[in-house]
Amino acid sequence: MGADGPSSADTVAGMGEFGVIRRVTEGRVQPPSTLLGPGDDAAVVAAPDGRVVASTDVLVEGVHFRLDWSTPEQVGRKAVAVNVADVAAMGAVPTGLLVGLACPPDTPASVLDEVANGMWAEAARAGAGVVGGDMVTSDSLVISVTVLGDLEGRAPVTRSGARPGDVLAVAGRLGWAAAGLAVLGRGFRSPVAVVGAQRAPEPPYAAGPQAAAAGATSMIDVSDGLLADLGHVAEASGVGIDVRTELLEVHQRLVDVANALGADPLHWVLTGGEDHALAATFPSVESVPADWRVIGSVRQGEGVTVDGRPYEGPQGWEHWR
Amino acid sequence: MGADGPSSADTVAGMGEFGVIRRVTEGRVQPPSTLLGPGDDAAVVAAPDGRVVASTDVLVEGVHFRLDWSTPEQVGRKAVAVNVADVAAMGAVPTGLLVGLACPPDTPASVLDEVANGMWAEAARAGAGVVGGDMVTSDSLVISVTVLGDLEGRAPVTRSGARPGDVLAVAGRLGWAAAGLAVLGRGFRSPVAVVGAQRAPEPPYAAGPQAAAAGATSMIDVSDGLLADLGHVAEASGVGIDVRTELLEVHQRLVDVANALGADPLHWVLTGGEDHALAATFPSVESVPADWRVIGSVRQGEGVTVDGRPYEGPQGWEHWR
Repeated sequence: MGADGPSSADTVAGMGEFGVIRRVTEGRVQPPSTLLGPGDDAAVVAAPDGRVVASTDVLVEGVHFRLDWSTPEQVGRKAVAVNVADVAAMGAVPTGLLVGLACPPDTPASVLDEVANGMWAEAARAGAGVVGGDMVTSDSLVISVTVLGDLEGRAPVTRSGARPGDVLAVAGRLGWAAAGLAVLGRGFRSPVAVVGAQRAPEPPYAAGPQAAAAGATSMIDVSDGLLADLGHVAEASGVGIDVRTELLEVHQRLVDVANALGADPLHWVLTGGEDHALAATFPSVESVPADWRVIGSVRQGEGVTVDGRPYEGPQGWEHWR
Repeated sequence: MGADGPSSADTVAGMGEFGVIRRVTEGRVQPPSTLLGPGDDAAVVAAPDGRVVASTDVLVEGVHFRLDWSTPEQVGRKAVAVNVADVAAMGAVPTGLLVGLACPPDTPASVLDEVANGMWAEAARAGAGVVGGDMVTSDSLVISVTVLGDLEGRAPVTRSGARPGDVLAVAGRLGWAAAGLAVLGRGFRSPVAVVGAQRAPEPPYAAGPQAAAAGATSMIDVSDGLLADLGHVAEASGVGIDVRTELLEVHQRLVDVANALGADPLHWVLTGGEDHALAATFPSVESVPADWRVIGSVRQGEGVTVDGRPYEGPQGWEHWR
């Protein structure tokens, strides 16, 4: 750090664990589901359904985000969003979040402030509280988020319930984050719409409980790419799934970006992860809720096909590393 | 790695995320509270009380454990134990655990197997299931555990309920892990009793709900050291707390180790963390359950005293770094 760098009092090490926790929790507004928030040995969160849905995701700097590509606020938003999408994909509404943060001792307090601001903002968008967490020092920045959710009396929608004859539908965007990653990887910072999708996804949280209420037979959060994640549904359900490309929305903005980069926008839609759209199967076209778009069907057999044929090319996010 | 080192197929990178997850979850027995275990977007855990208690702790290699001092199995046990102690300290019984694991790609699969074995063993001891998690690569080994618990209809016992006139009691051991750390720090590996206490604590899980049922007015998990953690209770409750040294158990084994190292065993008991004993306050001596030992009292005022006087010396685990 140069002469303008933070003094030790402005770093994680200078403030100490309790100072940091106070700084990122004091004065925040909790939803009614937070019965006991941060500051004790554990939090207490309402679970009116008598069951609690829970999922953990870990984000590592340099692997899942880059602080030269994203602001700390966007990293905080993303860490919450990718987790909340997991409970939405069960058909649950998020209630509480716990955050485990491991960061270098010389991390500026301002960076943690921004990460916390992003987390609280996205948590508020989802209707959940940040109810607890832990702060430790490490060599690199690792953010672990656990999200809790409530099923509101519904059965959880798993990956294993798809049946031949079901229709396949998605809610949310596909391919935008992949397009953003391609743009960032070339050293560009725009167009903002696709770059922003990569930096902080906006999963369609409400669409999960909506699908569950409408009788969805299976559901998954599209985190690794549409074809890769549908592969998990096909395997768990013991079925085959066919995606119809004429039903996929390939937004003109993706087409423009792809043309500029010499890429295939349909490939982004089929294999790009990180938008955290939801994919679900429904017993009939009539049962698909308004916010969902039909994009294919479930058949007997196994595996995922595109327009009836195996898709040529890499399937899933590993391509994008 | 030499010629005897693991081949790439025997590492985290070789197996891939899904291979690792399958390896550490398949064939494990879940308790009845696990309604939906690993393998979907999220887990579903019973919350019969209509509330869920939740806490997260993060352990970092080189900070919270050392693989040259502890086996991976002990690290797994410790990661679970320190978390379960937090829900016990609220008066809750643990139900489910979620594990976020960030580790270098060349981590041998056998290390993860052992960590997982330790986690499952300690989870079974606590009566909880390992219901979900996430596995990612990073530069260093970081283990994040979230524990869920059920209050069984009781009010949570917080840090803020201690009242002047209450008696102070503890359940579990004090000073053993600190003695073990002192031994390890000198390069010794025995006596096993104290070294083992450092490597994998055995918190008195059942004593938490027991205290809650007996009317404990406040409770805390002793993770930073008795005096430091009682300081949190004193501050949250707006009271003073006095510890009586003649009531503290200083085991002969601690005395022997202290004599050998030229250390003060009482200092370990008062300031050593990591045994994860529970400390609680009760309205009367008569209300203290059998597994608990009275060690002091709550008074008007503020701060923590020992035999009526401020304790001279470092308070808490930072001394032990």
